[in-house]
Amino acid sequence: MIKADMNRKMEIARKKVWDAIHAHGGTTLLSTGISGDDARMAKAAIEAGARMLEPNHPAVALARGYKGVTNMHAAEQIRHEIPLQEMAKVTSGVRQVAGNDIYITVGIPGGFTEVMPTILSDEDFKLMSLAGADGLHVHKTDLKDLEEVVERAHKYGLLIDAYIGRSSDLHPFGIPADTPEEVAKVAKLMENMGVDFIGLMTGMSYEGTKAGEIPVIIQERIQALVESVKVPTLAEGGINIVNQKAFRNTGINILVVGTAIDDMAELAVREAVKNFIP
Amino acid sequence: MIKADMNRKMEIARKKVWDAIHAHGGTTLLSTGISGDDARMAKAAIEAGARMLEPNHPAVALARGYKGVTNMHAAEQIRHEIPLQEMAKVTSGVRQVAGNDIYITVGIPGGFTEVMPTILSDEDFKLMSLAGADGLHVHKTDLKDLEEVVERAHKYGLLIDAYIGRSSDLHPFGIPADTPEEVAKVAKLMENMGVDFIGLMTGMSYEGTKAGEIPVIIQERIQALVESVKVPTLAEGGINIVNQKAFRNTGINILVVGTAIDDMAELAVREAVKNFIP
Repeated sequence: MIKADMNRKMEIARKKVWDAIHAHGGTTLLSTGISGDDARMAKAAIEAGARMLEPNHPAVALARGYKGVTNMHAAEQIRHEIPLQEMAKVTSGVRQVAGNDIYITVGIPGGFTEVMPTILSDEDFKLMSLAGADGLHVHKTDLKDLEEVVERAHKYGLLIDAYIGRSSDLHPFGIPADTPEEVAKVAKLMENMGVDFIGLMTGMSYEGTKAGEIPVIIQERIQALVESVKVPTLAEGGINIVNQKAFRNTGINILVVGTAIDDMAELAVREAVKNFIP
Repeated sequence: MIKADMNRKMEIARKKVWDAIHAHGGTTLLSTGISGDDARMAKAAIEAGARMLEPNHPAVALARGYKGVTNMHAAEQIRHEIPLQEMAKVTSGVRQVAGNDIYITVGIPGGFTEVMPTILSDEDFKLMSLAGADGLHVHKTDLKDLEEVVERAHKYGLLIDAYIGRSSDLHPFGIPADTPEEVAKVAKLMENMGVDFIGLMTGMSYEGTKAGEIPVIIQERIQALVESVKVPTLAEGGINIVNQKAFRNTGINILVVGTAIDDMAELAVREAVKNFIP
Protein backbone atom coordinates (compact mmCIF):
# COMPACT_ATOMS: atom_id res chain seq x y z
CA MET A 1 0.00 0.00 0.00
CA ILE A 2 3.00 2.34 -0.02
CA LYS A 3 4.63 1.54 -3.37
CA ALA A 4 3.40 4.68 -5.13
CA ASP A 5 4.08 6.80 -2.03
CA MET A 6 7.66 5.58 -1.94
CA ASN A 7 8.10 6.09 -5.70
CA ARG A 8 6.97 9.66 -5.19
CA LYS A 9 9.35 10.09 -2.20
CA MET A 10 12.22 8.83 -4.38
CA GLU A 11 11.30 11.11 -7.29
CA ILE A 12 11.44 14.13 -4.96
CA ALA A 13 14.83 12.98 -3.66
CA ARG A 14 16.21 12.41 -7.18
CA LYS A 15 15.13 15.92 -8.10
CA LYS A 16 17.09 17.32 -5.12
CA VAL A 17 20.25 15.71 -6.51
CA TRP A 18 19.73 16.85 -10.12
CA ASP A 19 18.89 20.36 -8.90
CA ALA A 20 22.14 20.46 -6.89
CA ILE A 21 24.14 19.23 -9.91
CA HIS A 22 22.59 21.85 -12.19
CA ALA A 23 22.90 24.65 -9.59
CA HIS A 24 26.63 23.96 -9.35
CA GLY A 25 27.41 23.89 -13.06
CA GLY A 26 27.29 20.13 -13.57
CA THR A 27 29.37 19.07 -10.57
CA THR A 28 28.12 19.38 -7.01
CA LEU A 29 29.49 18.38 -3.60
CA LEU A 30 28.49 15.54 -1.27
CA SER A 31 29.78 16.94 2.01
CA THR A 32 30.75 14.29 4.54
CA GLY A 33 33.02 13.72 7.57
CA ILE A 34 32.24 16.15 10.39
CA SER A 35 30.08 18.25 8.04
CA GLY A 36 27.83 15.22 7.56
CA ASP A 37 27.29 14.08 11.14
CA ASP A 38 27.67 17.11 13.44
CA ALA A 39 24.62 19.37 13.15
CA ARG A 40 26.72 22.49 13.90
CA MET A 41 29.10 21.75 11.03
CA ALA A 42 26.33 20.52 8.71
CA LYS A 43 24.69 23.93 9.17
CA ALA A 44 27.99 25.65 8.29
CA ALA A 45 28.37 23.48 5.17
CA ILE A 46 24.83 24.30 4.02
CA GLU A 47 25.40 28.01 4.63
CA ALA A 48 28.43 27.72 2.34
CA GLY A 49 26.29 26.18 -0.39
CA ALA A 50 26.37 22.41 0.17
CA ARG A 51 23.12 20.70 -0.88
CA MET A 52 24.09 17.09 -0.25
CA LEU A 53 25.25 15.66 3.09
CA GLU A 54 26.49 12.23 4.13
CA PRO A 55 26.66 11.11 7.75
CA ASN A 56 28.32 7.69 7.98
CA HIS A 57 29.12 5.13 10.65
CA PRO A 58 32.95 5.20 10.58
CA ALA A 59 32.90 9.00 10.95
CA VAL A 60 30.43 8.70 13.83
CA ALA A 61 32.79 6.16 15.45
CA LEU A 62 35.50 8.85 15.32
CA ALA A 63 33.12 11.59 16.53
CA ARG A 64 32.09 9.53 19.55
CA GLY A 65 35.61 8.33 20.34
CA TYR A 66 34.15 4.83 20.09
CA LYS A 67 36.68 2.35 21.55
CA GLY A 68 39.22 5.16 21.42
CA VAL A 69 39.63 5.16 17.64
CA THR A 70 41.36 8.29 16.34
CA ASN A 71 41.93 7.56 12.66
CA MET A 72 39.81 6.33 9.77
CA HIS A 73 41.80 3.10 9.38
CA ALA A 74 41.00 2.08 12.98
CA ALA A 75 37.41 3.30 12.63
CA GLU A 76 36.84 1.03 9.61
CA GLN A 77 37.61 -2.01 11.80
CA ILE A 78 34.92 -1.31 14.39
CA ARG A 79 32.36 0.72 12.44
CA HIS A 80 29.91 -2.24 12.26
CA GLU A 81 29.51 -1.99 16.06
CA ILE A 82 27.90 1.48 15.87
CA PRO A 83 24.21 0.84 16.56
CA LEU A 84 21.85 1.60 13.68
CA GLN A 85 19.76 3.57 16.21
CA GLU A 86 22.73 5.94 16.62
CA MET A 87 22.86 6.52 12.86
CA ALA A 88 19.09 7.13 12.85
CA LYS A 89 19.51 9.72 15.64
CA VAL A 90 22.34 11.44 13.76
CA THR A 91 20.25 11.50 10.58
CA SER A 92 17.20 12.87 12.36
CA GLY A 93 19.21 15.66 14.01
CA VAL A 94 21.00 16.68 10.82
CA ARG A 95 17.67 16.61 8.95
CA GLN A 96 16.04 18.90 11.52
CA VAL A 97 18.80 21.45 11.14
CA ALA A 98 19.21 21.04 7.35
CA GLY A 99 15.55 21.29 6.35
CA ASN A 100 13.87 19.24 3.62
CA ASP A 101 15.63 20.66 0.55
CA ILE A 102 18.99 19.08 1.40
CA TYR A 103 19.73 15.55 0.11
CA ILE A 104 20.94 13.27 2.90
CA THR A 105 22.52 9.87 2.16
CA VAL A 106 23.68 7.79 5.12
CA GLY A 107 26.39 5.18 5.62
CA ILE A 108 25.06 2.52 8.00
CA PRO A 109 26.44 -0.71 9.51
CA GLY A 110 25.68 -3.45 7.01
CA GLY A 111 25.63 -1.03 4.08
CA PHE A 112 29.41 -1.23 3.74
CA THR A 113 31.54 -4.36 3.35
CA GLU A 114 31.68 -5.21 7.05
CA VAL A 115 34.10 -7.62 8.76
CA MET A 116 31.33 -9.24 10.82
CA PRO A 117 27.87 -10.51 9.78
CA THR A 118 25.84 -7.30 9.79
CA ILE A 119 22.40 -7.92 8.36
CA LEU A 120 19.90 -5.22 7.50
CA SER A 121 16.24 -6.14 7.97
CA ASP A 122 13.22 -4.42 6.45
CA GLU A 123 12.69 -2.65 9.78
CA ASP A 124 16.19 -1.16 9.53
CA PHE A 125 15.51 0.42 6.13
CA LYS A 126 12.19 1.71 7.44
CA LEU A 127 13.92 3.20 10.49
CA MET A 128 16.42 5.12 8.36
CA SER A 129 13.70 6.33 6.02
CA LEU A 130 11.59 7.59 8.93
CA ALA A 131 14.68 9.22 10.47
CA GLY A 132 14.87 11.52 7.45
CA ALA A 133 17.36 9.86 5.09
CA ASP A 134 16.79 10.37 1.36
CA GLY A 135 19.13 7.53 0.56
CA LEU A 136 21.86 5.18 1.70
CA HIS A 137 25.56 5.48 0.91
CA VAL A 138 26.49 1.89 0.08
CA HIS A 139 29.93 0.30 -0.23
CA LYS A 140 29.18 -3.32 -1.06
CA THR A 141 31.73 -5.32 -3.06
CA ASP A 142 29.38 -7.86 -4.58
CA LEU A 143 26.61 -7.25 -7.12
CA LYS A 144 24.20 -9.79 -5.55
CA ASP A 145 24.61 -8.27 -2.07
CA LEU A 146 24.15 -4.83 -3.57
CA GLU A 147 21.01 -5.92 -5.39
CA GLU A 148 19.43 -7.08 -2.10
CA VAL A 149 20.19 -3.69 -0.54
CA VAL A 150 18.76 -1.78 -3.50
CA GLU A 151 15.50 -3.77 -3.48
CA ARG A 152 14.88 -3.30 0.24
CA ALA A 153 15.92 0.35 0.20
CA HIS A 154 13.56 1.20 -2.66
CA LYS A 155 10.73 -0.56 -0.83
CA TYR A 156 11.02 2.10 1.88
CA GLY A 157 11.67 5.04 -0.43
CA LEU A 158 15.46 5.20 0.00
CA LEU A 159 17.71 5.84 -3.02
CA ILE A 160 21.12 4.20 -3.30
CA ASP A 161 24.53 5.61 -4.16
CA ALA A 162 26.94 2.69 -4.66
CA TYR A 163 30.54 2.50 -5.83
CA ILE A 164 33.05 0.80 -8.09
CA GLY A 165 36.53 -0.12 -6.80
CA ARG A 166 39.36 -2.45 -7.73
CA SER A 167 39.98 -6.08 -6.80
CA SER A 168 43.36 -5.11 -5.28
CA ASP A 169 41.94 -2.42 -2.91
CA LEU A 170 43.27 -2.73 0.65
CA HIS A 171 39.95 -1.42 2.01
CA PRO A 172 37.23 -2.74 -0.29
CA PHE A 173 34.66 0.00 -0.92
CA GLY A 174 33.13 -1.01 -4.22
CA ILE A 175 32.27 -3.60 -6.85
CA PRO A 176 35.65 -4.58 -8.34
CA ALA A 177 36.44 -3.43 -11.89
CA ASP A 178 40.12 -3.37 -12.84
CA THR A 179 40.08 -1.82 -16.32
CA PRO A 180 38.13 1.10 -17.81
CA GLU A 181 36.20 -1.45 -19.90
CA GLU A 182 35.21 -3.31 -16.74
CA VAL A 183 34.24 -0.02 -15.06
CA ALA A 184 31.84 0.68 -17.96
CA LYS A 185 30.44 -2.85 -17.81
CA VAL A 186 29.95 -2.88 -14.02
CA ALA A 187 28.44 0.61 -14.08
CA LYS A 188 25.84 -0.52 -16.63
CA LEU A 189 25.03 -3.61 -14.55
CA MET A 190 24.54 -1.36 -11.49
CA GLU A 191 22.34 1.04 -13.45
CA ASN A 192 20.19 -1.81 -14.77
CA MET A 193 19.91 -3.16 -11.23
CA GLY A 194 18.37 0.14 -10.13
CA VAL A 195 21.30 1.82 -8.38
CA ASP A 196 20.31 5.48 -8.38
CA PHE A 197 23.76 7.14 -8.32
CA ILE A 198 26.94 5.37 -9.36
CA GLY A 199 30.29 6.30 -7.91
CA LEU A 200 33.93 5.49 -8.48
CA MET A 201 36.52 5.09 -5.71
CA THR A 202 39.32 7.47 -6.68
CA GLY A 203 41.53 7.38 -3.60
CA MET A 204 44.34 5.33 -5.04
CA SER A 205 48.00 6.37 -5.03
CA TYR A 206 48.69 9.83 -6.36
CA GLU A 207 52.43 9.15 -6.49
CA GLY A 208 54.14 10.82 -9.42
CA THR A 209 51.09 12.98 -10.12
CA LYS A 210 51.58 16.76 -10.28
CA ALA A 211 49.71 18.84 -7.71
CA GLY A 212 46.32 19.79 -9.09
CA GLU A 213 46.21 16.91 -11.53
CA ILE A 214 44.78 13.42 -11.27
CA PRO A 215 46.49 10.24 -12.52
CA VAL A 216 45.72 9.19 -16.09
CA ILE A 217 44.39 5.84 -14.89
CA ILE A 218 41.79 7.59 -12.72
CA GLN A 219 40.85 9.93 -15.53
CA GLU A 220 40.27 6.93 -17.79
CA ARG A 221 38.18 5.15 -15.18
CA ILE A 222 36.06 8.25 -14.52
CA GLN A 223 35.57 8.74 -18.27
CA ALA A 224 34.44 5.12 -18.64
CA LEU A 225 31.91 5.67 -15.85
CA VAL A 226 30.44 8.97 -17.01
CA GLU A 227 30.11 7.77 -20.62
CA SER A 228 28.39 4.50 -19.72
CA VAL A 229 25.43 5.58 -17.53
CA LYS A 230 22.64 8.14 -17.48
CA VAL A 231 22.25 8.36 -13.69
CA PRO A 232 24.31 10.91 -11.74
CA THR A 233 27.91 9.85 -11.11
CA LEU A 234 30.17 10.36 -8.09
CA ALA A 235 33.90 10.31 -7.34
CA GLU A 236 35.02 9.47 -3.80
CA GLY A 237 38.53 9.46 -2.32
CA GLY A 238 41.60 11.64 -2.69
CA ILE A 239 39.66 14.77 -3.69
CA ASN A 240 41.13 17.96 -2.23
CA ILE A 241 41.16 21.70 -2.78
CA VAL A 242 44.09 21.47 -5.19
CA ASN A 243 42.81 18.75 -7.53
CA GLN A 244 39.05 19.42 -7.33
CA LYS A 245 39.11 21.38 -10.60
CA ALA A 246 40.71 18.44 -12.42
CA PHE A 247 37.98 16.18 -11.04
CA ARG A 248 35.33 18.69 -12.06
CA ASN A 249 36.72 18.74 -15.62
CA THR A 250 36.10 15.00 -16.04
CA GLY A 251 32.35 15.58 -16.14
CA ILE A 252 31.66 13.69 -12.92
CA ASN A 253 28.45 14.96 -11.28
CA ILE A 254 29.23 14.72 -7.57
CA LEU A 255 32.46 15.05 -5.59
CA VAL A 256 32.39 13.18 -2.25
CA VAL A 257 34.62 15.10 0.15
CA GLY A 258 35.21 14.36 3.83
CA THR A 259 38.87 14.31 4.83
CA ALA A 260 39.70 17.63 3.16
CA ILE A 261 36.90 19.29 5.16
CA ASP A 262 37.74 17.52 8.43
CA ASP A 263 41.41 18.47 8.07
CA MET A 264 40.50 22.15 7.77
CA ALA A 265 38.14 21.97 10.79
CA GLU A 266 40.84 20.25 12.86
CA LEU A 267 43.43 22.79 11.80
CA ALA A 268 41.06 25.62 12.77
CA VAL A 269 40.50 24.13 16.24
CA ARG A 270 44.25 23.67 16.69
CA GLU A 271 44.92 27.28 15.63
CA ALA A 272 42.09 28.57 17.84
CA VAL A 273 43.33 26.70 20.91
CA LYS A 274 46.91 27.89 20.38
CA ASN A 275 45.67 31.47 20.78
CA PHE A 276 44.64 30.76 24.35
CA ILE A 277 47.80 28.95 25.45
CA PRO A 278 51.12 30.75 25.80
CA MET B 1 34.10 2.00 51.89
CA ILE B 2 35.15 4.30 49.03
CA LYS B 3 35.71 7.60 50.85
CA ALA B 4 39.51 7.40 50.81
CA ASP B 5 39.51 6.04 47.25
CA MET B 6 37.44 9.00 46.10
CA ASN B 7 39.61 11.47 48.02
CA ARG B 8 42.59 10.03 46.21
CA LYS B 9 40.77 10.23 42.85
CA MET B 10 40.01 13.90 43.54
CA GLU B 11 43.61 14.68 44.56
CA ILE B 12 44.85 13.26 41.26
CA ALA B 13 42.29 15.36 39.38
CA ARG B 14 43.20 18.54 41.32
CA LYS B 15 46.83 17.95 40.41
CA LYS B 16 45.93 17.76 36.73
CA VAL B 17 44.40 21.24 36.96
CA TRP B 18 47.29 22.80 38.89
CA ASP B 19 49.78 21.18 36.51
CA ALA B 20 47.93 22.69 33.54
CA ILE B 21 47.87 26.12 35.20
CA HIS B 22 51.60 25.99 35.94
CA ALA B 23 52.49 24.58 32.52
CA HIS B 24 50.74 27.54 30.89
CA GLY B 25 52.31 30.30 32.94
CA GLY B 26 49.54 30.74 35.49
CA THR B 27 46.57 30.80 33.10
CA THR B 28 45.40 27.72 31.23
CA LEU B 29 42.48 26.96 28.91
CA LEU B 30 39.29 25.00 29.54
CA SER B 31 38.42 24.08 25.95
CA THR B 32 34.70 23.60 25.36
CA GLY B 33 32.08 23.77 22.59
CA ILE B 34 32.86 21.35 19.76
CA SER B 35 36.37 20.78 21.15
CA GLY B 36 34.78 19.43 24.32
CA ASP B 37 32.21 17.04 22.92
CA ASP B 38 33.40 15.82 19.51
CA ALA B 39 36.27 13.35 19.94
CA ARG B 40 37.84 14.41 16.62
CA MET B 41 38.00 18.05 17.70
CA ALA B 42 38.96 17.20 21.30
CA LYS B 43 41.96 15.36 19.86
CA ALA B 44 42.89 18.45 17.80
CA ALA B 45 42.56 20.70 20.88
CA ILE B 46 44.83 18.40 22.92
CA GLU B 47 47.39 18.26 20.11
CA ALA B 48 47.44 22.07 20.24
CA GLY B 49 48.16 21.99 23.97
CA ALA B 50 44.76 21.98 25.73
CA ARG B 51 44.83 20.04 29.00
CA MET B 52 41.28 20.70 30.19
CA LEU B 53 38.12 19.84 28.26
CA GLU B 54 34.45 20.49 28.93
CA PRO B 55 31.67 18.64 27.14
CA ASN B 56 28.29 20.09 28.12
CA HIS B 57 24.62 19.37 27.46
CA PRO B 58 23.62 22.55 25.55
CA ALA B 59 26.55 22.05 23.14
CA VAL B 60 25.56 18.40 22.69
CA ALA B 61 22.00 19.56 21.92
CA LEU B 62 23.49 21.67 19.10
CA ALA B 63 25.80 18.86 17.94
CA ARG B 64 22.89 16.42 17.66
CA GLY B 65 20.51 18.93 16.09
CA TYR B 66 18.20 18.10 19.00
CA LYS B 67 14.71 19.48 18.20
CA GLY B 68 16.34 21.44 15.40
CA VAL B 69 18.12 23.96 17.66
CA THR B 70 20.83 25.90 15.83
CA ASN B 71 21.93 28.53 18.36
CA MET B 72 22.98 28.52 22.00
CA HIS B 73 19.96 30.58 23.10
CA ALA B 74 17.56 27.93 21.76
CA ALA B 75 19.76 25.13 23.08
CA GLU B 76 19.58 26.54 26.62
CA GLN B 77 15.80 26.12 26.57
CA ILE B 78 15.82 22.38 25.82
CA ARG B 79 19.20 21.29 27.22
CA HIS B 80 17.58 19.59 30.24
CA GLU B 81 15.99 17.07 27.84
CA ILE B 82 19.36 15.64 26.76
CA PRO B 83 19.56 12.26 28.54
CA LEU B 84 22.30 11.93 31.14
CA GLN B 85 23.24 8.65 29.43
CA GLU B 86 24.10 10.69 26.32
CA MET B 87 26.44 12.91 28.37
CA ALA B 88 28.02 9.79 29.90
CA LYS B 89 28.61 8.36 26.41
CA VAL B 90 30.14 11.64 25.22
CA THR B 91 32.40 11.74 28.29
CA SER B 92 33.48 8.15 27.87
CA GLY B 93 34.37 8.66 24.21
CA VAL B 94 36.28 11.88 24.79
CA ARG B 95 38.12 10.24 27.71
CA GLN B 96 39.16 7.28 25.57
CA VAL B 97 40.65 9.59 22.96
CA ALA B 98 42.10 12.11 25.44
CA GLY B 99 43.85 9.65 27.77
CA ASN B 100 44.03 10.00 31.55
CA ASP B 101 46.21 13.11 31.84
CA ILE B 102 43.54 15.46 30.51
CA TYR B 103 41.10 17.04 33.02
CA ILE B 104 37.49 16.59 31.90
CA THR B 105 34.63 18.51 33.54
CA VAL B 106 31.13 17.92 32.23
CA GLY B 107 27.97 20.01 32.04
CA ILE B 108 24.98 17.75 32.70
CA PRO B 109 21.21 18.22 32.88
CA GLY B 110 20.44 19.21 36.47
CA GLY B 111 23.89 20.68 37.00
CA PHE B 112 22.81 23.98 35.45
CA THR B 113 19.84 26.13 36.45
CA GLU B 114 17.26 24.20 34.46
CA VAL B 115 13.75 25.34 33.50
CA MET B 116 12.18 22.01 34.49
CA PRO B 117 12.63 19.87 37.62
CA THR B 118 15.83 18.00 36.79
CA ILE B 119 17.04 16.04 39.79
CA LEU B 120 20.39 14.32 40.06
CA SER B 121 20.46 11.11 42.11
CA ASP B 122 23.48 9.39 43.62
CA GLU B 123 23.39 6.96 40.71
CA ASP B 124 23.74 9.85 38.26
CA PHE B 125 26.94 11.14 39.89
CA LYS B 126 28.29 7.59 39.97
CA LEU B 127 27.46 7.17 36.28
CA MET B 128 29.39 10.30 35.31
CA SER B 129 32.33 9.33 37.48
CA LEU B 130 32.50 5.87 35.93
CA ALA B 131 32.18 7.40 32.44
CA GLY B 132 35.51 9.14 33.00
CA ALA B 133 34.63 12.63 34.23
CA ASP B 134 37.08 14.28 36.64
CA GLY B 135 34.50 16.82 37.62
CA LEU B 136 31.23 18.54 36.86
CA HIS B 137 30.81 22.00 35.35
CA VAL B 138 28.04 23.48 37.48
CA HIS B 139 25.91 26.58 36.86
CA LYS B 140 23.58 26.67 39.87
CA THR B 141 22.23 30.03 41.04
CA ASP B 142 21.58 29.14 44.66
CA LEU B 143 24.13 28.28 47.35
CA LYS B 144 21.97 25.58 48.99
CA ASP B 145 21.34 23.83 45.66
CA LEU B 146 25.04 24.09 44.88
CA GLU B 147 25.95 22.61 48.26
CA GLU B 148 23.82 19.53 47.57
CA VAL B 149 25.57 19.05 44.24
CA VAL B 150 29.03 19.44 45.80
CA GLU B 151 28.33 16.88 48.53
CA ARG B 152 27.02 14.23 46.17
CA ALA B 153 29.73 14.86 43.58
CA HIS B 154 32.54 14.50 46.12
CA LYS B 155 30.99 11.26 47.37
CA TYR B 156 31.72 9.79 43.92
CA GLY B 157 35.09 11.46 43.43
CA LEU B 158 33.93 14.29 41.16
CA LEU B 159 35.32 17.81 41.61
CA ILE B 160 33.14 20.88 41.04
CA ASP B 161 33.76 24.06 39.08
CA ALA B 162 30.94 26.51 39.88
CA TYR B 163 30.33 30.12 38.93
CA ILE B 164 29.36 33.59 40.14
CA GLY B 165 26.98 35.75 38.10
CA ARG B 166 24.74 38.76 38.62
CA SER B 167 21.13 38.95 39.77
CA SER B 168 20.20 40.77 36.54
CA ASP B 169 21.59 38.09 34.18
CA LEU B 170 19.18 37.17 31.39
CA HIS B 171 20.51 33.59 31.41
CA PRO B 172 21.37 32.75 35.04
CA PHE B 173 24.66 30.84 35.14
CA GLY B 174 25.93 31.56 38.63
CA ILE B 175 25.38 32.52 42.24
CA PRO B 176 24.35 36.20 42.10
CA ALA B 177 26.85 38.80 43.34
CA ASP B 178 26.31 42.34 42.08
CA THR B 179 29.34 44.21 43.45
CA PRO B 180 33.03 43.27 43.72
CA GLU B 181 32.54 43.05 47.52
CA GLU B 182 29.71 40.57 47.02
CA VAL B 183 31.86 38.61 44.55
CA ALA B 184 34.55 38.23 47.21
CA LYS B 185 31.99 37.24 49.85
CA VAL B 186 30.21 34.67 47.64
CA ALA B 187 33.54 33.25 46.45
CA LYS B 188 34.63 32.65 50.05
CA LEU B 189 31.29 30.98 50.86
CA MET B 190 31.73 28.72 47.83
CA GLU B 191 35.31 27.87 48.82
CA ASN B 192 34.24 27.04 52.39
CA MET B 193 31.45 24.88 51.01
CA GLY B 194 34.03 22.79 49.17
CA VAL B 195 33.69 24.06 45.60
CA ASP B 196 36.97 23.03 44.00
CA PHE B 197 37.30 25.69 41.30
CA ILE B 198 35.47 29.01 41.38
CA GLY B 199 34.55 30.87 38.25
CA LEU B 200 33.13 34.23 37.27
CA MET B 201 30.69 34.77 34.40
CA THR B 202 32.32 37.46 32.26
CA GLY B 203 30.07 37.51 29.21
CA MET B 204 28.32 40.76 29.92
CA SER B 205 28.10 43.70 27.49
CA TYR B 206 31.40 44.80 26.00
CA GLU B 207 29.81 47.97 24.61
CA GLY B 208 32.15 50.95 24.72
CA THR B 209 35.15 48.70 25.44
CA LYS B 210 38.16 48.96 23.14
CA ALA B 211 39.13 45.80 21.21
CA GLY B 212 41.60 43.78 23.26
CA GLU B 213 40.48 45.27 26.55
CA ILE B 214 37.91 44.18 29.11
CA PRO B 215 35.45 46.50 30.86
CA VAL B 216 36.59 47.98 34.17
CA ILE B 217 33.64 46.42 35.98
CA ILE B 218 34.72 42.94 34.88
CA GLN B 219 38.33 43.61 35.83
CA GLU B 220 37.17 44.63 39.32
CA ARG B 221 35.02 41.55 39.69
CA ILE B 222 37.83 39.24 38.55
CA GLN B 223 40.24 40.96 40.94
CA ALA B 224 37.79 40.47 43.83
CA LEU B 225 37.56 36.78 42.96
CA VAL B 226 41.26 36.01 42.55
CA GLU B 227 42.18 37.87 45.75
CA SER B 228 39.55 36.16 47.90
CA VAL B 229 40.18 32.44 47.32
CA LYS B 230 43.04 29.95 47.21
CA VAL B 231 41.43 27.47 44.82
CA PRO B 232 41.93 27.86 41.07
CA THR B 233 39.73 30.51 39.46
CA LEU B 234 37.99 30.60 36.10
CA ALA B 235 36.53 33.23 33.77
CA GLU B 236 33.73 32.19 31.40
CA GLY B 237 31.98 34.21 28.70
CA GLY B 238 33.08 36.78 26.16
CA ILE B 239 36.69 35.57 25.96
CA ASN B 240 38.14 35.73 22.46
CA ILE B 241 41.46 35.82 20.66
CA VAL B 242 41.64 39.61 20.88
CA ASN B 243 40.95 40.07 24.60
CA GLN B 244 42.50 36.84 25.97
CA LYS B 245 45.70 38.65 26.93
CA ALA B 246 43.77 41.18 29.01
CA PHE B 247 42.01 38.31 30.79
CA ARG B 248 45.35 36.56 31.33
CA ASN B 249 46.77 39.72 32.90
CA THR B 250 44.09 39.68 35.62
CA GLY B 251 45.67 36.63 37.24
CA ILE B 252 42.71 34.37 36.55
CA ASN B 253 43.83 30.72 36.38
CA ILE B 254 41.55 29.24 33.73
CA LEU B 255 39.91 30.73 30.63
CA VAL B 256 36.74 28.91 29.59
CA VAL B 257 36.45 29.22 25.80
CA GLY B 258 33.83 27.66 23.56
CA THR B 259 32.24 30.08 21.11
CA ALA B 260 35.57 31.49 19.86
CA ILE B 261 36.71 27.95 19.01
CA ASP B 262 33.38 26.88 17.49
CA ASP B 263 33.29 30.02 15.35
CA MET B 264 36.70 29.20 13.87
CA ALA B 265 35.72 25.57 13.21
CA GLU B 266 32.50 26.69 11.50
CA LEU B 267 34.37 29.25 9.43
CA ALA B 268 36.87 26.58 8.38
CA VAL B 269 34.08 24.22 7.25
CA ARG B 270 32.42 27.06 5.34
CA GLU B 271 35.69 27.97 3.63
CA ALA B 272 36.46 24.31 2.87
CA VAL B 273 33.03 23.69 1.35
CA LYS B 274 33.26 26.83 -0.82
CA ASN B 275 36.33 25.36 -2.49
CA PHE B 276 34.27 22.51 -3.88
CA ILE B 277 31.34 24.57 -5.14
CA PRO B 278 31.69 26.98 -8.09
